[in-house]
Amino acid sequence: MSLEPQFALADIRIRVQRDLTDFLAKQTLYLGEIGTELIPAAEAINAFLLNGGKRLRPLFAYCGYIGAGGEDDDSIIRAIASLELLQGCALIHDDLMDASDTRRGQPSIHRRFEMIHQRDELSGSAANYGASAAILLGDLTLVWADQMLHDSGITDSQLVRSLSIYDEMRVEIMAGQFLDIHEQALATQSVARSLKIARYKSGKYTVERPLHFGTCLALPAEERRQDYFTIFSEFGLPLGEAFQLRDDLLGVFGDPSITGKPAGDDLREGKRTVLMAMTQDRANAKQEAIIAKYFGDRELDTEGVESLRAIIEETGAKEHVEELIEKLTLTALDALNRDEIPPAAHSLLTELASIAMGKTP
Amino acid sequence: MSLEPQFALADIRIRVQRDLTDFLAKQTLYLGEIGTELIPAAEAINAFLLNGGKRLRPLFAYCGYIGAGGEDDDSIIRAIASLELLQGCALIHDDLMDASDTRRGQPSIHRRFEMIHQRDELSGSAANYGASAAILLGDLTLVWADQMLHDSGITDSQLVRSLSIYDEMRVEIMAGQFLDIHEQALATQSVARSLKIARYKSGKYTVERPLHFGTCLALPAEERRQDYFTIFSEFGLPLGEAFQLRDDLLGVFGDPSITGKPAGDDLREGKRTVLMAMTQDRANAKQEAIIAKYFGDRELDTEGVESLRAIIEETGAKEHVEELIEKLTLTALDALNRDEIPPAAHSLLTELASIAMGKTP
Repeated sequence: MSLEPQFALADIRIRVQRDLTDFLAKQTLYLGEIGTELIPAAEAINAFLLNGGKRLRPLFAYCGYIGAGGEDDDSIIRAIASLELLQGCALIHDDLMDASDTRRGQPSIHRRFEMIHQRDELSGSAANYGASAAILLGDLTLVWADQMLHDSGITDSQLVRSLSIYDEMRVEIMAGQFLDIHEQALATQSVARSLKIARYKSGKYTVERPLHFGTCLALPAEERRQDYFTIFSEFGLPLGEAFQLRDDLLGVFGDPSITGKPAGDDLREGKRTVLMAMTQDRANAKQEAIIAKYFGDRELDTEGVESLRAIIEETGAKEHVEELIEKLTLTALDALNRDEIPPAAHSLLTELASIAMGKTP
Repeated sequence: MSLEPQFALADIRIRVQRDLTDFLAKQTLYLGEIGTELIPAAEAINAFLLNGGKRLRPLFAYCGYIGAGGEDDDSIIRAIASLELLQGCALIHDDLMDASDTRRGQPSIHRRFEMIHQRDELSGSAANYGASAAILLGDLTLVWADQMLHDSGITDSQLVRSLSIYDEMRVEIMAGQFLDIHEQALATQSVARSLKIARYKSGKYTVERPLHFGTCLALPAEERRQDYFTIFSEFGLPLGEAFQLRDDLLGVFGDPSITGKPAGDDLREGKRTVLMAMTQDRANAKQEAIIAKYFGDRELDTEGVESLRAIIEETGAKEHVEELIEKLTLTALDALNRDEIPPAAHSLLTELASIAMGKTP
């Protein structure tokens, strides 16, 4: 750890990218040997996964590993990079469920295959073809995550002891996603339920569980693992929530050139975020009527987006969420001031928190 | 192995069922603790997985394990039962992609949640809610398969050495499924392509790979594993193809009370099976015109189904497929006549082949 933390993290990100590139190149060859018809599928996953992304989950896993006393090794980079494939599955399926057309400024997987269907004048429904391709490529990416972890070159005992957190993390994200689609289908929204969904769907899975995963790679169960689990939960849960709340703000107020999605897309989708739950809690009758009219209208124009944005600001929900983010981030950082966290890991985690919160690139 | 093979297999099936029931009960509790909204999700998976099914993949894996010299153990039953969860994911996602309303005489998962949406008068589109639920529950079932395997109680070395075949099997099934949806979208059909899809989508995954998985559980890499891989491929590949061809016949000529699907459903879906590819290869101009008119018509009535069935018989495609099934099954059984296969395993595999081919219940 002789580098400054931001350089050290940038270096890990480069190694993760290189390992993902290598892994996907190998799998692309393998699929191509089964049938050339599979090459567009492999290419789509390559384009989707290798083009952008902050690699937050691998980076948090790396910090968990170093924080709990692990020593840098190439096999660890491959093991943590697998979390990016898991995230790939979540995004591919999420885009399909949300009917999102774009991701990181590129067509989402189902849209990409819809367009291939149209371009090649294939028979049947282009939308069904796109949806089926996205379901299968999401599944494949989930299996590839396992495969990348299994073949990472970590020791058998590292692998075996990392699996239970790895499984738990995956069950939690599916559970969170299910709670989310259920919430979208309810007539009313609640701040408490939205907070829980944010916690499961994104908070735990982005920060806390990757840190725990790294801890398991570093330490056998008998060796003070529980101490690190506790510290990393105290750091990871509030930071993960702050991260999700920030995502809520970006979905409404974010710059499309940064988010890769059209401005106000969450408003058109009618996405039931914590931010919107808080807005609805505070809205007066007139504001409620405007929300009822515009929120979730797929065809909403810029003016409609602007009037919803105005309500989110006028009710004080935006400011409240911003304060909450600030508070949660401070609570998280405070949890790192413990003797168990070596200074190098402390710097890495502080820096990474700032990257996650969009304060450093 | 003192029992007659059919009793021995029935006994394994009961133990698999018990372990699946226990595992799912535990996961249902766990999900319920996250949120009561998740209970319908857990119940749906319970109903889908515990209600019927021949448990062919666990049984083949068990035979592979015993065949390669393994000794019966409860942990092995849990490990092989996980294949049924994997199959659950494949079926849930497959039903969604095929827009199949029923499975084993019950509503498919997406239909079930569509109906819940309607019953509870939830907001938004019932079809989207059903589709999202099926995507997520398929993903969850895939993760649960891993979890059941990881927590089965097999030794670390058994676990680690089984993972590469387990991963390969999963990649193959996703690849086969992708080839299948792509084939459905092409303007013309080919017997060669259909055979390859049948092999990847179902053949390898139903017989050969479960046998290899069982072999890995029984033997470390250095101990003659390759011999068993070879024998089980010589048995499993033709049997798997025969199994898939039989499935093609059932989809067209099968009794709905046995298949759990409406009669002639594959014809209405326009499913591009080997049987249909052979029919189209042999059809004259008049028959071709009828196929073009009726095949893939979702609203096709009984008379239309009958005229397609007649063509499949008249062209000789049905008879040819029946002969092929017979030939492939004999080739498979012949591969078992090897000294490496102990007599008890020989009886089990012969009996299981007959169950797979629908000759014994």
